[in-house]
Amino acid sequence: MDNLEIIKRKAVQIFSEEDLQRKINSGRKLTIKLGADPSRPDLHIGHSVVLRVLKQFQDMGHEVIFVVGDFTGMIGDPSGKSKTRPSLTFEETRKSAETYLKQATKILDKDKTKIAFNSEWLSKMNFADVVSLTSKYTVARIMERDDFKNRFENNLPLSMHELLYPLMQGYDSVALNADIEIGGTDQTFNLLVGRELQKDYGEEPQVVMTFPLLVGLDGKEKMSKSLDNYIGLTDTPYQKFEKSMKIPDNVLRQYFELATDLPNNVIEEIMRKDIREAHILFAKELIKMYDNINDFENAKNRYLKVAKGDIPDDIEEVKIKEEKINICDLLVKVGFASSKGEAKRMVIGKGVKIDSITVTDINEIIGIQKGKIVQFGKNKFIKLLK
Amino acid sequence: MDNLEIIKRKAVQIFSEEDLQRKINSGRKLTIKLGADPSRPDLHIGHSVVLRVLKQFQDMGHEVIFVVGDFTGMIGDPSGKSKTRPSLTFEETRKSAETYLKQATKILDKDKTKIAFNSEWLSKMNFADVVSLTSKYTVARIMERDDFKNRFENNLPLSMHELLYPLMQGYDSVALNADIEIGGTDQTFNLLVGRELQKDYGEEPQVVMTFPLLVGLDGKEKMSKSLDNYIGLTDTPYQKFEKSMKIPDNVLRQYFELATDLPNNVIEEIMRKDIREAHILFAKELIKMYDNINDFENAKNRYLKVAKGDIPDDIEEVKIKEEKINICDLLVKVGFASSKGEAKRMVIGKGVKIDSITVTDINEIIGIQKGKIVQFGKNKFIKLLK
Repeated sequence: MDNLEIIKRKAVQIFSEEDLQRKINSGRKLTIKLGADPSRPDLHIGHSVVLRVLKQFQDMGHEVIFVVGDFTGMIGDPSGKSKTRPSLTFEETRKSAETYLKQATKILDKDKTKIAFNSEWLSKMNFADVVSLTSKYTVARIMERDDFKNRFENNLPLSMHELLYPLMQGYDSVALNADIEIGGTDQTFNLLVGRELQKDYGEEPQVVMTFPLLVGLDGKEKMSKSLDNYIGLTDTPYQKFEKSMKIPDNVLRQYFELATDLPNNVIEEIMRKDIREAHILFAKELIKMYDNINDFENAKNRYLKVAKGDIPDDIEEVKIKEEKINICDLLVKVGFASSKGEAKRMVIGKGVKIDSITVTDINEIIGIQKGKIVQFGKNKFIKLLK
Repeated sequence: MDNLEIIKRKAVQIFSEEDLQRKINSGRKLTIKLGADPSRPDLHIGHSVVLRVLKQFQDMGHEVIFVVGDFTGMIGDPSGKSKTRPSLTFEETRKSAETYLKQATKILDKDKTKIAFNSEWLSKMNFADVVSLTSKYTVARIMERDDFKNRFENNLPLSMHELLYPLMQGYDSVALNADIEIGGTDQTFNLLVGRELQKDYGEEPQVVMTFPLLVGLDGKEKMSKSLDNYIGLTDTPYQKFEKSMKIPDNVLRQYFELATDLPNNVIEEIMRKDIREAHILFAKELIKMYDNINDFENAKNRYLKVAKGDIPDDIEEVKIKEEKINICDLLVKVGFASSKGEAKRMVIGKGVKIDSITVTDINEIIGIQKGKIVQFGKNKFIKLLK
């Protein structure tokens, strides 16, 4: 099966397959657009679904452009109604783009990846240009977007500038003369705006391809950092292993399909075997892709030890100057608790052990000795140094 | 009764009376804004309602600013969905503003009247400024405007840029720091947008005052040039007289109240008398205001003659070179018909007379003699010259 077939098999929707085939057949080097949100530069394996599709396009000789929405990012949400869109400075958007690219090139070919900032063209548009842009879209069509529709119909605040955002994003495709734009299924509406605007501006419309959203570790919500249900591309091998073991059994197959490159028949075989073993194999794939396969055994051993209630070999060490210290102060010092109040609750909840013995008194004084192990829950360990 | 009381009595709504009183009491020279549509520079007595209110403000020492919407006028309607808003050139908007001012100063004090073009500030706004402007208004509030609401709910085309127009017009008030804006009741929504935006931009909100719309000569629709139911400020005294006689009896009182300066008790007295006499007195007031009272008797005499079926004394003369000419060609030459087809229909409809004798044959040849009278209908006359 060739790359294009793999891509097409993964896609949820393609607008349209004929257009895609024609563009591919043209033999031109195509420009593949992906929008990047500069306010959330931390990538997780949910993002990897489309990044890996981009890599396949790169392998076919095409060029990827990340469009960083720095213009909208810098404007932020002037209405102040949304806390999730703080306005960013010029430096922040550049730094965020760098972070983004660094992580994305764990998957992508750096030489075939460009980054563009939409302030380049949007900041140069004047009021007349905006009127011209907005004249190309009806209110009815923009209000088809589910969130707009719901907020409007339920009398929830919806500011007029919010209606401009999809048009800005769509205009990015015009400015770049994008051939293909890809994204998650939640982006379908926005990507199609780009396709339609290109027609209005006399360009060949981009092919829009949408891909499934990976569900988070909770098995319910879309994977996202803010819900803390994610496996980050920059998580340590041990974190990847540990989180992989937590994937709900009923979505593990989806994780294999969307987040690894294993062929379907191999996935089938894995899923037929022991489910715990399947989780371990998933972790192995992740570590192989994003870290170093040599790290796999270490991560596995550590995990298994911890799972048995043992103390792992490689524990972070923290130096404590005091001779003696209150248990709660110690928990704050080693970074397990962010306040003494939180530390007290951890002790009262019987989650804290010193050298495998549970501490129950919040006033207990701990003598600091080299090699003493502080433990919280099943898998947080610190080795003390004097 | 002082000027302010007269103004307040005429107003349909004031947002708010307290604000108005406070601004007047401040003793400052206030800026009174009126929007002028550069695509329709011909003023009629329907416009005079607000113009005469402006004059009263001028008499109180305040300054009037006409805002010519040249920015929107120059952009026009890029969607091409409305034929009523063709885009205008820079020269056209300037010329239109001149025409507008020339007519408006038949009522207003020229020295206390300024003209401003909204391209001065709107053309300087960039996309970020537009986002900031639009962030100050919710979709729900803009969609309260009746025409937007109806078109949206009835699935009629409504382009997104149309939603921007009220905000542009509202921003004009911000740019001018207007103290008061006045307009017809049909402008209430737009004027309030200005009042609200000023608050958002940290200015003292303008007082909004709306005034009744004068009904047209059809007694039904709002007076407008496009419906040809108007009495123009630049109509000749005779046209003013003749059109005044056509005002439906049941709206004549309204015409007196809105379009003249006569006090209520005088209007009462006039309306109690003979209704035909009342029409004549209305015509007299118009000619007194906009032309010269000396023209009144002439207009009246001509009208009475024509009404009796007589030929008036002062008829426009047209020189015809031919010795003989077909009746239809003649009608085109003297300007009664714009095509031979139209001329034929006029003859067939028995509307055409030569020296008071109806012409019935479209092939009739007319001998051209000095003093011969060509007549169409009851009141269109041309005297021929050789």
